[in-house]
Amino acid sequence: MKTINIGVAGLGTVGSGVAEIFCQGKHFDIPIRLAKAAEADSARRQSVKLDKSVLINDARQLIDDPVIDIVVELIGGCGIAKEIVLGALKNGKAVVTANKALLAKHGEEIFSAVKKYDGDIYYEASVAGGIPIIKIFREGLIANKINSIFGIVNGTCNYILTKMKEDGANFSEALTGAQKEGYAEKDPTLDIEGFDSAHKLVILSSLALGAWINPKDVYTEGISRLTHSDIIYASELGYVIKLLAIYKNNKEGVEVRVHPTLLPENHVLSSVNGVFNAIFVKGDNVGDQLFYGRGAGKLPTASAVVADILDVARNLSSGTRRRLPVINTGSKNAKVVPIEKVVNKCYLRFTTLDRPGVLAKIAGILGRNRISIESVIQKGKKETEPVHIVIMTHVAVEKDIRKAIGLIDKMPEVKAKTMMMRVEE
Amino acid sequence: MKTINIGVAGLGTVGSGVAEIFCQGKHFDIPIRLAKAAEADSARRQSVKLDKSVLINDARQLIDDPVIDIVVELIGGCGIAKEIVLGALKNGKAVVTANKALLAKHGEEIFSAVKKYDGDIYYEASVAGGIPIIKIFREGLIANKINSIFGIVNGTCNYILTKMKEDGANFSEALTGAQKEGYAEKDPTLDIEGFDSAHKLVILSSLALGAWINPKDVYTEGISRLTHSDIIYASELGYVIKLLAIYKNNKEGVEVRVHPTLLPENHVLSSVNGVFNAIFVKGDNVGDQLFYGRGAGKLPTASAVVADILDVARNLSSGTRRRLPVINTGSKNAKVVPIEKVVNKCYLRFTTLDRPGVLAKIAGILGRNRISIESVIQKGKKETEPVHIVIMTHVAVEKDIRKAIGLIDKMPEVKAKTMMMRVEE
Repeated sequence: MKTINIGVAGLGTVGSGVAEIFCQGKHFDIPIRLAKAAEADSARRQSVKLDKSVLINDARQLIDDPVIDIVVELIGGCGIAKEIVLGALKNGKAVVTANKALLAKHGEEIFSAVKKYDGDIYYEASVAGGIPIIKIFREGLIANKINSIFGIVNGTCNYILTKMKEDGANFSEALTGAQKEGYAEKDPTLDIEGFDSAHKLVILSSLALGAWINPKDVYTEGISRLTHSDIIYASELGYVIKLLAIYKNNKEGVEVRVHPTLLPENHVLSSVNGVFNAIFVKGDNVGDQLFYGRGAGKLPTASAVVADILDVARNLSSGTRRRLPVINTGSKNAKVVPIEKVVNKCYLRFTTLDRPGVLAKIAGILGRNRISIESVIQKGKKETEPVHIVIMTHVAVEKDIRKAIGLIDKMPEVKAKTMMMRVEE
Repeated sequence: MKTINIGVAGLGTVGSGVAEIFCQGKHFDIPIRLAKAAEADSARRQSVKLDKSVLINDARQLIDDPVIDIVVELIGGCGIAKEIVLGALKNGKAVVTANKALLAKHGEEIFSAVKKYDGDIYYEASVAGGIPIIKIFREGLIANKINSIFGIVNGTCNYILTKMKEDGANFSEALTGAQKEGYAEKDPTLDIEGFDSAHKLVILSSLALGAWINPKDVYTEGISRLTHSDIIYASELGYVIKLLAIYKNNKEGVEVRVHPTLLPENHVLSSVNGVFNAIFVKGDNVGDQLFYGRGAGKLPTASAVVADILDVARNLSSGTRRRLPVINTGSKNAKVVPIEKVVNKCYLRFTTLDRPGVLAKIAGILGRNRISIESVIQKGKKETEPVHIVIMTHVAVEKDIRKAIGLIDKMPEVKAKTMMMRVEE
């Protein structure tokens, strides 16, 4: 059996993990060889345990190297990474990538290229690190219409939310802690504002639907506005707050949204803590399933990359191209329900002066906008300082909720922007 | 692309589920057709929604039918099912089966036949119903050495244990309830004595190890001796009792055992309730993963069967035989650690007369057998009736534990056989 030659582009965290797994001496049933590893940073080149003859500076060389069968793109971002992926496909090489941002932002171009060049692309490590969720969606659950996905797919946010709940930390304290632990970047925007989760949701939802979801259609809200009070009030109401990537396939179309979400305490996702990821899926035949594991980190992510390499190597060994269908990025694009039409129970936290009649005024505005109240928490009395009124609504249309909040926030007694979070059961 | 013709043997629960999925009109990217469905029971033949021209009486006809590409064995048991599987392989047909008992008991013969005839066998539905755990082991986690598996793989037992905990039911009440709900057979032996879990553990462990585990080497203990008192004492100690299928790969060899197990309340498996299954895996690269879903039922199990059919159909369409390696059943058999050498913390419940010095005598025997005590529960005083003494030990060798229990059970003050359960953290 011909040895399949691998070219790894990028020896950062994941790339060095892949190199490490290749050095573990594991026996694979298909002969594969790490033939070339490209890294522009000389310190990284020196610290990796690979034979020096394997190392090159410029990842672009992998594209044209006739020895390389599979190009493994682990550079990240949408610059040279995109060039490498498209160039490799054009030159008839199979591609493995861990790059969710690239796939989400340029999926149409990349998946079209896969079809055009009759190529193959595997991207297990792009979502939820070591959890083989892409394989599960593409193969394991193929006999199902996926009705919904609830994903905790960003370890940074889940770590911050866990710390806020367990240690009583405020958002900024928890973020600083996450940065110290190496779980959050210096510039944490991509994670904490939900964009990273949205990239992953684009990939999962497109696989679930079998049609491309435009990342612009994913409603995205992060966790940076959350306060420790919200965690406490949610807990008093019997809920836990998680940043969820949500997909629902309804009669009206699909919902794709990322936002902090109140989940009942006994929901299986509520006990997913720390940097762990978990994806909760409802299939029409299979019912509820949960897949849980480390969503990031050197070796867990590299484990997914190497599984992809083996998959592609099997295809190449047996002369199969494109064993699995490519996501349809053509005309059959998804019909996405706009956020204004989404229907949810809501958590509302108002910051108001403690004056008689304020609750009645708020309740009145909600009622006139077809929003009925399930429960209310009103705490303490502070004559001079504003207090919190927390309301859990029954299900209501987002457009109505927004209109009501707009009106309430204009009340003279209301002293801060109202906090609204959606609830899933 | 040539249509792949499927022959289903058996239209019981799973078979009729497969027929139902074929009637749902789902679009698959590989053309497949349910060409023949064999069922000896005429009532079942009549109740299924398939076209009458598809139905035949005798599953043996599928083996020789030149039209059939994939034989799907859903008869169960080790009689005609074995004949069908071996016959199909011999005649060059690919096989999909959900039959854990057949694979566990006759795995050596079946996997040898797969190799001999260069055939293909898929068996996703044999373990944990709709959870794609076989695919995850064979492909998704391939870059890992699997260090351990903890599986809740029998929904009947998990339902009974959940009812005993939640409703305070005794074992026999919970069993009767499970039978009424259709979650337990009239003769529940296979489930409640742990044999079904052991069959599934043979399959998972053999995949994890890459060498065949002889089912005779799986230490197997069921849940029928458990009392409601044990559930309560475990809870007081901070534990939940689950029937676990356990695999550990240590220096000394592999441990393969099925028994009721005390798990810490905050373990991710402790909240898996009712008929749900879950498999907790530790891989050397990927760390901890959990896979959770319905382990039985018509459509969840059929979902796994249809995923297998698609997998095999892809192989046939691309002219690939044996894309994945077959479990090695040859000389490279597993070295299994005998249960006497296994080391565990233990829960011990003694039933003794409430006389002075009894605890001292028991503690003395434990001490002389190198077993040290972590905690003790001794409840109430009943001068005439026996009482319970519950001891949680530190880690100890099973052989020592057994010897000590043997001596203690001979004490005149001890009035019933001591209950021993192993603890995992």
